Formats: sequence, structure tokens, C-alpha cells
Amino acid sequence: MAKKSRKELIINEAAIIFKQKGYSATSMRELAEKVGIEAASLYNHIRSKDEILEEICFSVAHEYLSFITEIEERECSYTDKLKGLIELHIKLIIEKPNEVSVANNDWKNLSDPKKKLYKEVRKGYENRIANILTKGMQTGEFKQLHVSVALFTLLSSLRWIELWYRPGRDVTADELKHDLTTFLVHGLKN
Amino acid sequence: MAKKSRKELIINEAAIIFKQKGYSATSMRELAEKVGIEAASLYNHIRSKDEILEEICFSVAHEYLSFITEIEERECSYTDKLKGLIELHIKLIIEKPNEVSVANNDWKNLSDPKKKLYKEVRKGYENRIANILTKGMQTGEFKQLHVSVALFTLLSSLRWIELWYRPGRDVTADELKHDLTTFLVHGLKN
Repeated sequence: MAKKSRKELIINEAAIIFKQKGYSATSMRELAEKVGIEAASLYNHIRSKDEILEEICFSVAHEYLSFITEIEERECSYTDKLKGLIELHIKLIIEKPNEVSVANNDWKNLSDPKKKLYKEVRKGYENRIANILTKGMQTGEFKQLHVSVALFTLLSSLRWIELWYRPGRDVTADELKHDLTTFLVHGLKN
Repeated sequence: MAKKSRKELIINEAAIIFKQKGYSATSMRELAEKVGIEAASLYNHIRSKDEILEEICFSVAHEYLSFITEIEERECSYTDKLKGLIELHIKLIIEKPNEVSVANNDWKNLSDPKKKLYKEVRKGYENRIANILTKGMQTGEFKQLHVSVALFTLLSSLRWIELWYRPGRDVTADELKHDLTTFLVHGLKN
């Protein structure tokens, strides 16, 4: 249990330092310093920098997959599914800004076959959102738009939050959630 | 005149190869090969890789600034200004995909003071769009949203086009323009 907590601590610190310096520019030695242990001890908890990146990317991917499963199972309109999805994205970015940033930007540094897997997982996630949009269009709840255009407009609008939003900006999390939801839902609703 | 054309050709080829390989990973030797001249001759036309990047970034910036000036001067509703802006962004991405991509992604490799200048130019561009959004909200044409949220949602939605759109995808340029405009304008309109 203590060992697991230490591993978690290492991963949390790694996410911070990867975000600040970039994954490639960060050495295991620097990470050890940040955590406050000897570089050699680091390897008692984690095998490699690669493994840390995998842990971060796949834990974030896991969060997104939980979201979409929860959203799919909700018995509600497609509009409310869309609202729920936007809310969950914002919540995750606020709760785990470093992890989300590293997963979004540094997944390219994963090694195969993990990189390939990560891309497949992401593609699967996008397809499930596309499916919600398609169904919403079929029922007439959403406008008839090219699904890919709707999907990528939605995803890029969610993506910028991680790049731009900081607690302490002049936008509160609630304002952000409200205004972004208003913009995107009205954009899609029929 | 012939010299200028050769310089333009070099810059066009550079944009293609920078986009494919990344700015940092591209050598002047590779560029010379691509253009079909000796590396030494390259320097008759262009001083450095840095200068090429500057030319690309600032020519794209210049296009955006022409857009916004044109849009500001149009005597039309804020909704129509917004539509015009979306249209011009899509047009530029389709006409100069490599240059836009390099400017968007590789401006970070500019050296100061050019890098600082580029950031200021970009900030100025964003402020002028924010101004259109603010005025549209004041007249009641647009919803009352936090201007930064509206601005960055709009910009990120335009940004993904360069990352995703290729002629030959199953979306035509006209569909893209129509659907993206529909999404964004309805999202903002009151």
C-alpha cells in the first residue's frame, strides 16, 4: 500500500514536470529530485520514463472511457448527453490538468504497441461521441451536419480548455461550463 | 524578378518539408535537394532557415490581418462579419495548407525579437475578433457569453481545420464552410 502511494506520488510529480518541461526534456534524475528520493530508488517503484508516460496516458484514457459509458447509459435526451459530456470534460481538466495535458500532448512519445493501442482507444472514444451526434441528428434533436465536422468542432472546443483555462483566470469553472455548453449545444440543436 | 520567384519557390518547398518533417528536423541541405539546387546556392536566395520560417509565419500573419481589416470595414451585421471570418479562415487553409500549418505549429521556433513580435501580432488579431464578438453581444445580436470563452471556442474550432481537413476527405470545402458556419453562428447568435 505504501509502495503504491509512492508510485502514485511519482506519477503525479512526473505529470507536473512533463507538462512544464516537456516529456522528452525531462530526465529520471530530475524527476527523482522533484520527488525527493535517490534516482536509484526511483526504479524500485517504476521501470522507466516510458512506463510513467503509459500510466498517465492510459489513466486519462480510462477516465474518458468511463465518461462515455456513463453518458451512453443515461436515460436522457441527446442534448442532455451532450451537456453531460461537456461537463465531464471540464471537470477532468480542472481536477487533473497536468495529466490531461501530458496525455493530450505527449502520447506521441509512447512506444509501440502502446502508442498504437492509445490511438485505437482514442479513435474508439471519438466514434462513440460521433454515434451520439448521429443519433441526435436522426431523431431531429440536432441539426443535420456532417458528423465529422460536428465532432471535431466539438472536440477542438473541449481541447482548448486544457491549453487555456487556469483557475485564477477571470472565468470561473461554472461560467466556463455554462458558456461553453450554451455555445456548443445551441450550435448543434435543431 | 527571377530571383524573387526562386526565393518564393524555396519558401513554398520549405513549407511543405517543414510540415512533413518538422522545422527542427529539416536541414538546409535537404531543402536544397528538394528545390533541386546546390546547398551553397540556396544562400544566394535566403540567409538562413530562420529567415524562411520568419517569411512563412509573417506572410500568414499578414493574410489574417488583411482578413480582419476587411471584415471590420464591411458594412454588415456582426453575424455576417462572423460568417465572413469563418469563410476567410477556411479559404486560407485550403489555399495554403502548408504555410498555415507551419505558422500555427512552428512559430515557437522563431528567434526573438521576431518571436515576440509574432506573439504580439497574434494577440492583436485575437483582440480584434474579441472586439467583434463584444460588439455583437452589446447590440444583442450574440448571446451574452464570457468573451474569452466565445473567442477561444471560435478560434479552436477554426484551428482544427488545418489539423484535420484534407481535400479528398468525404467533406467538400463548401460543406465544411456551410456546416462549420451553421454550428458556430447558431452557437453565438441570440
